[in-house]
Amino acid sequence: MHFASDNAAGIAPAILAAIGRANDGFALGYGEDAITKRLERRLAEIFEHELAAFLVPTGTAANALALAHIAPPWGAVLCHEECHLATDECGAPEFFGGGLKLIALAGEACKIPAATLEAALKRLPWGGPHHVTAAALSLTQATEAGTLYAPDEMRRLAELAHAKNMLVHVDGARFANALVRQNLAPAAASWKLGVDVLSFGATKGGALAAEAVLVFDPARAAGLAERRKRGGHLLSKHRFLAAQLEAYLTDDLWLTLARHANAMADLLAARLAAAGCSALWPVEANEVFVKFSHDLDRRLRQAGASYHPWATDSLRAGVALGSDEVLVRLVTSFATRAEDVEEFVDVVRRHSGSRKAAVRNP
Amino acid sequence: MHFASDNAAGIAPAILAAIGRANDGFALGYGEDAITKRLERRLAEIFEHELAAFLVPTGTAANALALAHIAPPWGAVLCHEECHLATDECGAPEFFGGGLKLIALAGEACKIPAATLEAALKRLPWGGPHHVTAAALSLTQATEAGTLYAPDEMRRLAELAHAKNMLVHVDGARFANALVRQNLAPAAASWKLGVDVLSFGATKGGALAAEAVLVFDPARAAGLAERRKRGGHLLSKHRFLAAQLEAYLTDDLWLTLARHANAMADLLAARLAAAGCSALWPVEANEVFVKFSHDLDRRLRQAGASYHPWATDSLRAGVALGSDEVLVRLVTSFATRAEDVEEFVDVVRRHSGSRKAAVRNP
Amino acid sequence: MHFASDNAAGIAPAILAAIGRANDGFALGYGEDAITKRLERRLAEIFEHELAAFLVPTGTAANALALAHIAPPWGAVLCHEECHLATDECGAPEFFGGGLKLIALAGEACKIPAATLEAALKRLPWGGPHHVTAAALSLTQATEAGTLYAPDEMRRLAELAHAKNMLVHVDGARFANALVRQNLAPAAASWKLGVDVLSFGATKGGALAAEAVLVFDPARAAGLAERRKRGGHLLSKHRFLAAQLEAYLTDDLWLTLARHANAMADLLAARLAAAGCSALWPVEANEVFVKFSHDLDRRLRQAGASYHPWATDSLRAGVALGSDEVLVRLVTSFATRAEDVEEFVDVVRRHSGSRKAAVRNP
Amino acid sequence: MHFASDNAAGIAPAILAAIGRANDGFALGYGEDAITKRLERRLAEIFEHELAAFLVPTGTAANALALAHIAPPWGAVLCHEECHLATDECGAPEFFGGGLKLIALAGEACKIPAATLEAALKRLPWGGPHHVTAAALSLTQATEAGTLYAPDEMRRLAELAHAKNMLVHVDGARFANALVRQNLAPAAASWKLGVDVLSFGATKGGALAAEAVLVFDPARAAGLAERRKRGGHLLSKHRFLAAQLEAYLTDDLWLTLARHANAMADLLAARLAAAGCSALWPVEANEVFVKFSHDLDRRLRQAGASYHPWATDSLRAGVALGSDEVLVRLVTSFATRAEDVEEFVDVVRRHSGSRKAAVRNP
Repeated sequence: MHFASDNAAGIAPAILAAIGRANDGFALGYGEDAITKRLERRLAEIFEHELAAFLVPTGTAANALALAHIAPPWGAVLCHEECHLATDECGAPEFFGGGLKLIALAGEACKIPAATLEAALKRLPWGGPHHVTAAALSLTQATEAGTLYAPDEMRRLAELAHAKNMLVHVDGARFANALVRQNLAPAAASWKLGVDVLSFGATKGGALAAEAVLVFDPARAAGLAERRKRGGHLLSKHRFLAAQLEAYLTDDLWLTLARHANAMADLLAARLAAAGCSALWPVEANEVFVKFSHDLDRRLRQAGASYHPWATDSLRAGVALGSDEVLVRLVTSFATRAEDVEEFVDVVRRHSGSRKAAVRNP
Repeated sequence: MHFASDNAAGIAPAILAAIGRANDGFALGYGEDAITKRLERRLAEIFEHELAAFLVPTGTAANALALAHIAPPWGAVLCHEECHLATDECGAPEFFGGGLKLIALAGEACKIPAATLEAALKRLPWGGPHHVTAAALSLTQATEAGTLYAPDEMRRLAELAHAKNMLVHVDGARFANALVRQNLAPAAASWKLGVDVLSFGATKGGALAAEAVLVFDPARAAGLAERRKRGGHLLSKHRFLAAQLEAYLTDDLWLTLARHANAMADLLAARLAAAGCSALWPVEANEVFVKFSHDLDRRLRQAGASYHPWATDSLRAGVALGSDEVLVRLVTSFATRAEDVEEFVDVVRRHSGSRKAAVRNP
Repeated sequence: MHFASDNAAGIAPAILAAIGRANDGFALGYGEDAITKRLERRLAEIFEHELAAFLVPTGTAANALALAHIAPPWGAVLCHEECHLATDECGAPEFFGGGLKLIALAGEACKIPAATLEAALKRLPWGGPHHVTAAALSLTQATEAGTLYAPDEMRRLAELAHAKNMLVHVDGARFANALVRQNLAPAAASWKLGVDVLSFGATKGGALAAEAVLVFDPARAAGLAERRKRGGHLLSKHRFLAAQLEAYLTDDLWLTLARHANAMADLLAARLAAAGCSALWPVEANEVFVKFSHDLDRRLRQAGASYHPWATDSLRAGVALGSDEVLVRLVTSFATRAEDVEEFVDVVRRHSGSRKAAVRNP
Repeated sequence: MHFASDNAAGIAPAILAAIGRANDGFALGYGEDAITKRLERRLAEIFEHELAAFLVPTGTAANALALAHIAPPWGAVLCHEECHLATDECGAPEFFGGGLKLIALAGEACKIPAATLEAALKRLPWGGPHHVTAAALSLTQATEAGTLYAPDEMRRLAELAHAKNMLVHVDGARFANALVRQNLAPAAASWKLGVDVLSFGATKGGALAAEAVLVFDPARAAGLAERRKRGGHLLSKHRFLAAQLEAYLTDDLWLTLARHANAMADLLAARLAAAGCSALWPVEANEVFVKFSHDLDRRLRQAGASYHPWATDSLRAGVALGSDEVLVRLVTSFATRAEDVEEFVDVVRRHSGSRKAAVRNP
């Protein structure tokens, strides 16, 4: 009953096997190997666009390098107030960006409404020398709430940003989960919507540790190789990073794994709803957020379930947390089994039932 | 009719004279001169506390150095969302602080309510390694809205911060204006309320360019001299910085100048209210914020008045800006003359009157 | 004939197997797993000292984080002018260290002579506010020249640094190679000699990508977890980093692998010397530096050999490079086979012979 | 007898008077005033070239902003190992430059020989991703040794830099001293020689605190206004900075003041030579470097003379410091009087004479 995070899962077997295969013989380091070259071509094919790819071991590195590269130190990156890079990366974008500023925007379900972005950009003051310059918009797809920007929503946000000469970054730590839910081609979910730079994640999807910064205009990537190196993110045995991503992309493995994770989230949400615990946000990727009573929370943990409590200002209007309740995040992954879901919901059902019975028959 | 800023005024005559007097002969540079030594003792006397003083030419430098010194790069500085260092210093705190993060809190009249700070500090998540650490609270006294924290308000905020092991910084670019309004001794308005580090401003008050970072626990100042130097803020002919501050503090000049500026703001607010333009926030320092119709705004500018439009989310509930209106900031200074105020209000009165008449007799 | 770098080798089989074993089931991320806990205890045992360990994926990250942590932004790190972190990390220490300064010292065979350090520390000026403060000494063991500091040499350098209140860092990307050559226990080669912080490398020794910053005074490690996170170097599936290091340390694997690499270097050096190409520096780890004629260089590359040319000012007095010659670096690893060495030297021998013959019989 | 530094002098009377004149009435802050606009045009006239000017209060700020602007964080700035920005600014260039690297080159009399630059640029390795990129050359004119690059020397160095796509910066804290000695027009000493960015100093020349970064290609200045602001170097009462520089440039005041300072250095050097103390470097600006016996040094200080000891590796071959000797720097300024020089040399003469007599008649 492991729902703490998709990174609590291990390595997908096909990716582990690819690491083993890549271990054959010698290869030049730092990306000068054959697997890396092959992967770079493969990424361009899959995204149907020329691109510059920079492989790194963590999503935090991918996000921080991407933003530092498209925003000057006096630039502002507009993002949702609860997105990962604003709240969970210990200031990595500010560090890599030489002190750039994140401007946190509010919005239900961890999504930035177009009207909110528009208002923020219209509001005085923006621009030098006194004020930071609006330089980039960063969106997360799927969001921290496990929700999705519809293509039209993302396109509109990107248009607003581009009209202000800003660039558009997407944190795609769970990009595959979004893709399979929306049934879009990678191109249709990225540069065709106006995305300039994508943090393309594989770790949560099943890799050991492999992410890529994809820059859809390679000319814009000048200097990014140096940033990666001095950030300590250019792996010497780079072939093993490339091998992970290559396996992830082979035979649509990434999509298959993401479909499974999403399906497990759907199952979990459905079962919980049937047990009286409805998801607080639409379940559009591999995350389910619900409220539990403190008592139920205790019982679940006693039963061995693992998951995290969650703090948010992003709930739908009208949804509130009782003093006896805790909001929790349940994350599924490629490794979640239906049995785990059922076992978890059994505990919920058993306990909720007895509590309701108790309430009903005082 | 110069109400654009208190820095549109020049140098107070006594301060200019002091620069001239300090120009006698040779003196060692970089603060090794007699005036600097004398000033350092004087500051300690005036604040009734041992302190380490670091003179710099701008308020931005003072704020940025102070915050960089009391918050680590992975630290967060909680401050009002509209304070100067969050909005008007082009990211200086983030730059000097190695990528530290400002956490912007909302509050009416540019003041942080204790309940808001308390809620922010209670909310998950704070602290490493994933989240930035709450390291400092920065308050502005007087605020950007020309309002003041009452002593009890500031004490309570400082207590909340200290309880969380945070330090308390005050941006005192208009510290004198606050002091004379509240009729407090410098000590009673700073360290006695829990202030650890003060950006002590003199430029807006009448100096050419002179501010000081005052650290009330000198042991905590280790390394700040190096920060100042590598920030390019250690003046070689340092005696002239010290001479400005010495003159500013001599014979209560600073208080006299601030009292005048405040009185001019009071006069302006009273006259404008009588003309039908009430101040939007209490006038507690040397700033008056009012709404003008676009038409009146145009007339005033044609008449030669200078002032800035203002954008804010910090208005009292219920106060809103009509589509025909502009919110403006009017700042008085030691150099503002009553005639300027009267001349300005004359234009307002004349025009408002005719407009009202026009409305009345269509 | 792969002598380009020890990172051109892949993963040692036992380490790859450990990654596979660690892939069993779910585990909390970010170092909260059982393998990490176990490894931390194991490192303390092996080094016979309490320590704080921070695992990261690259040596550049380990060095940059270590130095940023022990030197303030206005600090200087004294190091050899040709050490990796001064020349091959694209400014990573300066970036992580908020603009700290590396002071490059010269010395034969990439070693800093004690007299050179002593002279540098005695020379004016050091210290604030005008001058950077001597904060750390960074030594590389084994050095970039494949040479070693004798224990007494390192102890003496550390004493000089400590006498100046500096801390001592060792870049141990090839620490194991040094250890087995000197036949020292890890403690005897590190904290017992005065080393405060060690970049403990495993990647060059046989891991996929695993290094550790070891801080021998855990109290001094406060904040390093935050630095690692905001540097993007806290891996989510951290157990796989820990598993690599655990396997590396199990049953003395690391020492066995290093012994093999060293032995291959010895063999290579001996064979080359016999062929008339003597090593330019003592072969004390797994690197051999020799001069080749351009012609021989071309032949070797035609025969499929891979290695890098090398630029240095660190040669013994009297050793010079002819205009027809290139200085090259040959690196052996755990994966180098004696056959590779023999094949390589065969080409050298064959060609050198013919050339000499040609020269002899014009 | 004040020879500690040219910044031990005060403000030239005409510049002080200009500050007083600028204090008439109100003016918009931050450079939006009439004096600033006028000065910007005047600078362009004097340099016979369009330019973007950024006024700041210190030379350290000017240098650090200039270099940060023309070198990326992964860039290297090649400079003389004893230049001010490498040794006396506590790492300001590294701080402002996001961790850029200064590459220190040796050379007699604090000048970089063309051959040394050429060799440094030819040497492997330069460029990403592993190595920092050679981005800028920084020269000091006049140098820290009070010597000058001849026009042809500077042109040649600039050509070498430009051929490598580097930009050329000159630290002109004593630019006027060089100009009058070489009898060159400002244009002929700057952009006509290939200088791209000039730190134009006035403080040492007689201002209170006023320097300017001059960028000869204004298009290249984009973003520099933001850098200045977030560095805390945009003065609110900017008109007083501009007024200083305007006065400095009016009626060739700057040249007159510099000529006087140089003449005093010449007189001092001539008198000292006559007394048996020859200058160690050619006296080409306003600095004289000589060796004193410890005894003479003591006597001079007892007599009230002030000056600094100096450490250097930049002496002519063959010149060495005896164990009984101290190398000292004597700096003259616009305020130095011939009487001060004579009084100083009297002490030297008297003491040297008696010492020699003592030696002569034991």
